Amino acid sequence: MTTQGEKETTRIEAFSDGVFAIAVTLLILEVKVPRNLPPDQLLAALAHQWPAWLAFLSSFLSIGIMWLNHHRLFTLIHRCDEPLLFYNLLLLLAITIVPFPTALLAEYIRGPGSRVAGLLYTIHGMIIAVCYTLLWRHAATGNRLLGPRISHDLAHAIFKQYRFGPLLSLGCVGLSLVSPYAAVGVMVALTLFFAVRPAALRCALDEELAT
Amino acid sequence: MTTQGEKETTRIEAFSDGVFAIAVTLLILEVKVPRNLPPDQLLAALAHQWPAWLAFLSSFLSIGIMWLNHHRLFTLIHRCDEPLLFYNLLLLLAITIVPFPTALLAEYIRGPGSRVAGLLYTIHGMIIAVCYTLLWRHAATGNRLLGPRISHDLAHAIFKQYRFGPLLSLGCVGLSLVSPYAAVGVMVALTLFFAVRPAALRCALDEELAT
Amino acid sequence: MTTQGEKETTRIEAFSDGVFAIAVTLLILEVKVPRNLPPDQLLAALAHQWPAWLAFLSSFLSIGIMWLNHHRLFTLIHRCDEPLLFYNLLLLLAITIVPFPTALLAEYIRGPGSRVAGLLYTIHGMIIAVCYTLLWRHAATGNRLLGPRISHDLAHAIFKQYRFGPLLSLGCVGLSLVSPYAAVGVMVALTLFFAVRPAALRCALDEELAT
Amino acid sequence: MTTQGEKETTRIEAFSDGVFAIAVTLLILEVKVPRNLPPDQLLAALAHQWPAWLAFLSSFLSIGIMWLNHHRLFTLIHRCDEPLLFYNLLLLLAITIVPFPTALLAEYIRGPGSRVAGLLYTIHGMIIAVCYTLLWRHAATGNRLLGPRISHDLAHAIFKQYRFGPLLSLGCVGLSLVSPYAAVGVMVALTLFFAVRPAALRCALDEELAT
Repeated sequence: MTTQGEKETTRIEAFSDGVFAIAVTLLILEVKVPRNLPPDQLLAALAHQWPAWLAFLSSFLSIGIMWLNHHRLFTLIHRCDEPLLFYNLLLLLAITIVPFPTALLAEYIRGPGSRVAGLLYTIHGMIIAVCYTLLWRHAATGNRLLGPRISHDLAHAIFKQYRFGPLLSLGCVGLSLVSPYAAVGVMVALTLFFAVRPAALRCALDEELAT
Repeated sequence: MTTQGEKETTRIEAFSDGVFAIAVTLLILEVKVPRNLPPDQLLAALAHQWPAWLAFLSSFLSIGIMWLNHHRLFTLIHRCDEPLLFYNLLLLLAITIVPFPTALLAEYIRGPGSRVAGLLYTIHGMIIAVCYTLLWRHAATGNRLLGPRISHDLAHAIFKQYRFGPLLSLGCVGLSLVSPYAAVGVMVALTLFFAVRPAALRCALDEELAT
Repeated sequence: MTTQGEKETTRIEAFSDGVFAIAVTLLILEVKVPRNLPPDQLLAALAHQWPAWLAFLSSFLSIGIMWLNHHRLFTLIHRCDEPLLFYNLLLLLAITIVPFPTALLAEYIRGPGSRVAGLLYTIHGMIIAVCYTLLWRHAATGNRLLGPRISHDLAHAIFKQYRFGPLLSLGCVGLSLVSPYAAVGVMVALTLFFAVRPAALRCALDEELAT
Repeated sequence: MTTQGEKETTRIEAFSDGVFAIAVTLLILEVKVPRNLPPDQLLAALAHQWPAWLAFLSSFLSIGIMWLNHHRLFTLIHRCDEPLLFYNLLLLLAITIVPFPTALLAEYIRGPGSRVAGLLYTIHGMIIAVCYTLLWRHAATGNRLLGPRISHDLAHAIFKQYRFGPLLSLGCVGLSLVSPYAAVGVMVALTLFFAVRPAALRCALDEELAT
């Protein structure tokens, strides 16, 4: 039997999936095709575009992994209340903004503005990490919105992990003032870590659900 | 058992969710990345963009909250007829237009054109409020399209609340001729009110459904 | 019980809904905000934009009504085969093109290029009408892909109606060479007719399903 | 009964459908409306746009057929694991990039840069073919993620067919250095082949499922 609550979560997921899918597909519009060049200059112009491609790839990666994480969290979240809707909107707000710091990074990473661009890119990443922590903390406190078979220990383990996100990305913000390249690199590595680690947690979850 | 009517509502919701998700994700494209500036001018240029960000945030907020309200109404609406499809298209029309008054406001809020921009922004907000009222009035009159357990009193209470929307936003239209800033501020406050108040109604609804 | 065939139709509908929703939401991007004008010139510039708004509204209306018709046809279509997938892709191709003739019409309706713009706009409308006829003819011939309770007479009645679409829009193509304004007007009226008439058929269908 | 695994596949399909639908709808934005021309020059300008339309059509066709294939594969794939999510993201990455080589081809196919544009277009096509092969190989090895009624022989037959994709498209990459026109033509023919052949396999599958 489908309860009212489950039905609501379905539509939140559908709306969020739409926003993730569009945000990830719009990123390529920031990579401009060089116009009206002779062949040798065309190759050089394409090669010279590497920061735009780097920014594109790192943003695609982040949004893709954020979708994975969103997808995983909502495997555990079975009910829905007003604050959850609000925290989810906040997260989607941060995700729709992604093309802006991405384009800024692509434009300025090579020049003297790289510190400003790196700073804003990492601050934006930190905001996303904070949004995830808030969303999960609200859903998991006292197993408020979780499915019946999610143990308190598992919920706490996930929370502990998400809590590292804001701290580590705060480190990236600091690092960006010293070396924007290093900060963006650590940010991407951090994103990859969040793609792999919750996988481990999911295994724990799968075992729990199977028993 | 899924009746034909329920199936239809599902596809209306899916199509509407798509439009909401795209409209909300396209907003960021209006915030242009400043190109080719030295670091100090870059910071100044970013700071100078505040009206674009303000417009972005207020439009994101409105579309997000409109999605919430659409979502809530269709929790109550179980059947579908031709006029409902028409009123829903009208509402989606108003929502796809959102990027235009938003960009206009961002461009003119600081200069002498602020009154024109504020006027069009608030008129557009009023049109959306009218669309919601029309949609709900059609669905709720005589419980035409509502689920079996929705009481006449609840339906009427929601209608009374939506009826205030057009009146209050008409006030904003008038206010925009005096102070565009105040009018946009009141409009955002109004939107927030519509996010919070139906929450109260939803509690009433939840109680009713639970009995 | 959900059969394989029904599941497939669901995903076709979801993909098509996505394309309809995006096509309808991208239209507003063709209406450019006038930049950097004093208030009196701003009002004049906005008023001078009427062809862009007219084109926007007529295209929104067509895509919206095409979605309605697509939605109705797939209420009747229960199975799926390879040609149906192909005809549906052809229809979606025609729908994603909509922003082009729309922008062309908005740019040239006032000047000497209005005949060229009107011609292409109406030819495009005719292609869409042909796509619908092909899709329905394939699905309905011998009740190939229809649900079990759709009578041969009803299927034929819908086909007869869709067959008028290409003929009438061919008339619009001819008319556009004489008067582009009249041709676009008749095209919009034709679209509205297709929104209302199948409604009548749907009532017939509802009666049939109810017995 | 819906198992956890099936539910997950549903959301992957929904997210992927969103990306396919948006990528296919954004393509038209690359075809620019010629602005402000007298009627005779307008016709000439529209005719002169044929490479943009050719590129548009070939990319629409590829994305459409890729959607068909994705849809078919996920008819067979019933379970979901972390590598599948990763391979699917890789495939979506390649699909969101489509507008770039498309625009490059439209810009340079007529001039001396046609070899560079054709080379990148065919390399991109090859990458997509590789992504499909990886995705299917992972899902089908030892029937890892397939539904219970999919025979090992059928899974292997599909794999053998997908394995040709990368090889044949590698041929296109080579051909593009000799004749970009021929290479793009063969690429489109190859895409059409992949739309038709798996149809034959699907018949085999349908028979198997029916027994």
